[in-house]
Amino acid sequence: MSAPRTLVAEPLTREAFAPFGDVIECSDAVRHFPINAGNTERYHDLARVDAGGRGRAAISIFRGQPRELPFMANMMERHRLGSQAFVPLSGRPYLVLVAPPSPRPRADQLRLFLARAEQGVNYARDVWHHPLLALEAESDFLIVDRIAAEPDCEEHVLDEGVELLLP
Amino acid sequence: MSAPRTLVAEPLTREAFAPFGDVIECSDAVRHFPINAGNTERYHDLARVDAGGRGRAAISIFRGQPRELPFMANMMERHRLGSQAFVPLSGRPYLVLVAPPSPRPRADQLRLFLARAEQGVNYARDVWHHPLLALEAESDFLIVDRIAAEPDCEEHVLDEGVELLLP
Repeated sequence: MSAPRTLVAEPLTREAFAPFGDVIECSDAVRHFPINAGNTERYHDLARVDAGGRGRAAISIFRGQPRELPFMANMMERHRLGSQAFVPLSGRPYLVLVAPPSPRPRADQLRLFLARAEQGVNYARDVWHHPLLALEAESDFLIVDRIAAEPDCEEHVLDEGVELLLP
Repeated sequence: MSAPRTLVAEPLTREAFAPFGDVIECSDAVRHFPINAGNTERYHDLARVDAGGRGRAAISIFRGQPRELPFMANMMERHRLGSQAFVPLSGRPYLVLVAPPSPRPRADQLRLFLARAEQGVNYARDVWHHPLLALEAESDFLIVDRIAAEPDCEEHVLDEGVELLLP
C-alpha cells in the first residue's frame, strides 16, 4: 500500500485564489476610500454575494471544532446555486481546500491554502471545497450564503484520501 | 444654554434591537444544528440580507477610528433600499445609535446600545443609524450591504446634538 498523497498549504493570496472565488481582507490592492467624514476607510466590494434560484442571502455563524493535523481529507462539497463566504471571528488561521468546477473534484487539481486570521474566503458557486477546517481551538466564522427551501449541497467522496499538512 | 441631552448605552439584546434589525451572535435562542458530520454547529439565518432595487449584496470591510467619549452625535443616516450589517472583526465592543423609521430621526426615539465584541448588528432598511462608532482602538468590521450604481444614503442633521455615554 502506497503512502497517502499529501498537500502542503500555500499562502492564501487574492491572485492564487482567483479561480475559486474572493479573498476578503483589507489590502491596498483593492479599492478603498474614506467615508463617515474621514473616520472610516471602506475596503469596498471584496466579495460578491451570489444567491440564485429562489434563494436569498443570509448571515449565519459556524462554530467549528479544530481539526487535528495531519488531517486526512476524504470528501469535497459544492453549491450549485450560490456563493458561500467564511470570515474568521476568533482570530485564528484555518485551512482552505478547493478544486475548480468540474463534474467531480479531481485529486490532481486540489489546492490547499493557509488563511491568516485576517483573511476570509468566498467560494464561487460550483467550486469544490472541503467543509470548515478550523485549527488550534474552537473557532467561529461568519457565513454569508444562500438560504432556500430546497437543499443545495453536492458531496463527492474522493477516490483516495489526501493528507493535509502545514508548511 | 441648557446641558446637552445625554444617552447612556443599554446592553444589546435581540429583543431590544428587534425594531431596528437583527443581532448577529451565537445564542441558544436562535435555531442551530450540527453540520459537517458533527464538526461544526450552524447558528442559522441570523440576519437577512436585503438588497432591493437594482442593487446586489456584497461584502466589504470598514476600518474605523475609535470615537472619544463622551461623543456628541449630530447626525443620523439611513438606507432606503437595503439592509446593512456590521460584524466586529477586531474583538472590541462598539456603540450602536438608532432611531426607528420615520421621515426624520426623532430625538426622543433615539436608542443607544453597547454591543459586545461577539455581537454584530444588521440595520433593517429605513432604520436611522449613526455612522460607525468604534471604541478603544482602530477596529475592522465586516460589512454586508447593498451596492449599486445609484447612491442610497439619506443623511439628517439632528436639531440638537446628543451626548453618548457608556454605562
